[in-house]
Amino acid sequence: MIKFHIDQSENANYIYQQVYEKLKRFILEHKISADDKLPSKRQLANELGISINSVATAYEQLLAEGYIYTIERKGYFVEDIDHFISGYARKADKLPDHLKETSDHKEDWLSLSHIKMDSTKFPFHEWMKSQQKAINQYSSELSKITHPQGPFTVRKTISDMIGLTRGVTCEPEQIVIGSGTQPLINQLMTMQPTNTKVAVENPGYSRIFQLLKSLKLEVLPITLDKEGMDIREVKASNPHFLFVTPSHQFPTGTIMPISRRVELLNWAAMREDRYIIEDDYDSEFKYGTYHIPSLQSLDQNHRVIYVGTFSKTLLPSFRISYMILPPKLLEMYRHHYSDWIQGSNSLHLYTLHDFIQSGEYAKHIKRMNQHYKMKRKQLVEALRLKFQDMIHINDIPAGLHFLATFHTDKSYNEIMDKAQGEKLEIYTIRRFLLESEAKKSANIQLVIGFASIKQDQIAEAVERLYRVIG
Amino acid sequence: MIKFHIDQSENANYIYQQVYEKLKRFILEHKISADDKLPSKRQLANELGISINSVATAYEQLLAEGYIYTIERKGYFVEDIDHFISGYARKADKLPDHLKETSDHKEDWLSLSHIKMDSTKFPFHEWMKSQQKAINQYSSELSKITHPQGPFTVRKTISDMIGLTRGVTCEPEQIVIGSGTQPLINQLMTMQPTNTKVAVENPGYSRIFQLLKSLKLEVLPITLDKEGMDIREVKASNPHFLFVTPSHQFPTGTIMPISRRVELLNWAAMREDRYIIEDDYDSEFKYGTYHIPSLQSLDQNHRVIYVGTFSKTLLPSFRISYMILPPKLLEMYRHHYSDWIQGSNSLHLYTLHDFIQSGEYAKHIKRMNQHYKMKRKQLVEALRLKFQDMIHINDIPAGLHFLATFHTDKSYNEIMDKAQGEKLEIYTIRRFLLESEAKKSANIQLVIGFASIKQDQIAEAVERLYRVIG
Repeated sequence: MIKFHIDQSENANYIYQQVYEKLKRFILEHKISADDKLPSKRQLANELGISINSVATAYEQLLAEGYIYTIERKGYFVEDIDHFISGYARKADKLPDHLKETSDHKEDWLSLSHIKMDSTKFPFHEWMKSQQKAINQYSSELSKITHPQGPFTVRKTISDMIGLTRGVTCEPEQIVIGSGTQPLINQLMTMQPTNTKVAVENPGYSRIFQLLKSLKLEVLPITLDKEGMDIREVKASNPHFLFVTPSHQFPTGTIMPISRRVELLNWAAMREDRYIIEDDYDSEFKYGTYHIPSLQSLDQNHRVIYVGTFSKTLLPSFRISYMILPPKLLEMYRHHYSDWIQGSNSLHLYTLHDFIQSGEYAKHIKRMNQHYKMKRKQLVEALRLKFQDMIHINDIPAGLHFLATFHTDKSYNEIMDKAQGEKLEIYTIRRFLLESEAKKSANIQLVIGFASIKQDQIAEAVERLYRVIG
Repeated sequence: MIKFHIDQSENANYIYQQVYEKLKRFILEHKISADDKLPSKRQLANELGISINSVATAYEQLLAEGYIYTIERKGYFVEDIDHFISGYARKADKLPDHLKETSDHKEDWLSLSHIKMDSTKFPFHEWMKSQQKAINQYSSELSKITHPQGPFTVRKTISDMIGLTRGVTCEPEQIVIGSGTQPLINQLMTMQPTNTKVAVENPGYSRIFQLLKSLKLEVLPITLDKEGMDIREVKASNPHFLFVTPSHQFPTGTIMPISRRVELLNWAAMREDRYIIEDDYDSEFKYGTYHIPSLQSLDQNHRVIYVGTFSKTLLPSFRISYMILPPKLLEMYRHHYSDWIQGSNSLHLYTLHDFIQSGEYAKHIKRMNQHYKMKRKQLVEALRLKFQDMIHINDIPAGLHFLATFHTDKSYNEIMDKAQGEKLEIYTIRRFLLESEAKKSANIQLVIGFASIKQDQIAEAVERLYRVIG
């Protein structure tokens, strides 16, 4: 009935596997019919000149996968299996070209990105020490999935810390840990009714704008005046949520003064369904002043949802952020996400906990403040020296980027093309203009980050930028 | 005009901070009016008996936060700031009691959970070595956010591995890394039209059932026969997606035979908008047979979305899973999530990459297969010895749990109450019955996991279980 050859050379697959594969193919191709009897183990072993054990293992595997069945004392029989039908879209050997990825490795490039950082400044040694301590101390917590909002211990450490550094008042219960502002806002807004209106800063954080739009919410870009979100526009458009960056407006850099803060808080206090989302993404870095208290610290009416991140203070690739929910939204969250599994690695979170508790986190921030202050000064000076009257820098000594305006006739497209040629990574304001009218103007604006570039590359980066814009 | 006292004792706050805090309060409480002039720095320093520097620093901070403004040669003046209004929901001192968390620390408890594991078996030392290598080798990748689907290098390693172990054929481009099956299915289904119908196994994975319902999709629980999802019900209900666990049905443990696999694949191949989601959550553990090839490996028509996880092979707290999208869905994904930031820590993912490449991952799985095989055998024997005719075990030697039926008159509620008293963590089938009719029967079923319990605790756990059910 069935005939096949077994390769018994040294490199051949396990003998049993050859028997299994061949029989499987015969059965799927219906070369052996349903309910046909297979040869006995001994018989097949003799025929093939192999051990009974090999045949027995193959038969067991075929049995487990349902290719054959057995009747006691009678032997092994072939199952009744449908022919495979051929659908319309046969699996091709290769992925279509337009779905292929190309390497984004940029050798010899210099970066003025506002997102990238310089990981060589990160104290990995101390981080690993904290991780080892977390492994020793939280073994049983690592054996299971944690609380949907993240481990209580870690939330406690975060709430204690931001109480001190940001004046934020909250209980650990109110903290929800997530892998970024984007997924946290996604969770928050997914539990709101579909007619929810959200006002965002324009220019502003485009990823959040896109996210809110993809959730089919009504998104209202609000003009910025010199103090931040225009309060008259807010009142006129009457949204439920405001998304603001009061500590250091993204991307313009404005620090929202107390007068506007009070205006926004008062606006929110007027109705129970009004909230302000405070994205405090880079408040840890101030180079001229001391820390500026958060909006949440001024809020007397549970109107502020504070969002913090470790992307700027640790590394953007670490993906640890959190939001602090007022009690009413917390209750809604608990109801909506009771079945949700916390997405951050607990080991990573307990490592953060130890890193903060041991004082290494505060030390690192202090070090980086000094480092960034120096780099920022050097970059601003080099730009001014090179570009002279051509440049205006929005010189607010905070955060990891600043906004620079260049007087030039070149278009944004020209500049992006030239930057490509010069191997210089830059971001223009266009990306952050949420409702982009391609305004004709004799200026172009760049959002210039200084966290990635190394000090000894600053001169070269400014030269390249001059060749791009000058 | 303004009078206050400065505490110059050793433990007092920085002098500048006291000046800053007091002036801030006076301004917010309108004890100094808008546009009032502040005393000059020298004048205030003299009045308070402190240094001019302290006053200057306080004024600078108040200026930065917008409490005061300055006119050149004239001095400092108070900004016009609204009174805070009192909303309806004053921030209370304490969180409402029902939102407080209680400790879930369960000392002296034993666990037969199907989710928990024993982290003391995890090779943290080797994991940390891989992490150190990842730090050294991928420094520039750690400085930035990675590809929305996860780093290409890591996806390449995963695709090579599952090609070998699961027969899965795919390109790294098709892999999307995520922090669990739940968020991946969430991403996948969020991009489907709202009239999408999804069929799920009943009993089945209740978190996925709840997720799909929360997305407002039509969710169809399908009865299981002895081969898995009832094909007639599938055909009758005509869904777009099937969610199945063919390698080891969750929670019943059934291995889907090849005949049903072909039937499901043929059903899907008939229409372009039909897909099968294969959740291959614990296929790495087989104790009697060799690995059973994935459904994806049999698919000739791009109909299967394969979902894999490292939650069972590494630790559930690590949160690394992935899905493999057929080209058409990949295209949709790229379009929908171009702005999405990958949520997993890159350092963690590169660590996994090295852990796999170095062979430690395969070694660990081999070790754990032997360990689990032994523990499983010991637990099954102890249960049979103790419960005798009272127990029937669905004895499929695979995965990290099995289904056991107990003949008893006790109700599920009684049993859960008693388990609480005995400090024994157990899960009944009720949690996984997606459309629960509280059927009256003389049986109760438990989903018994053996990954968490230590070998020397098995006897005691069985004793406790006997006191609960027996």
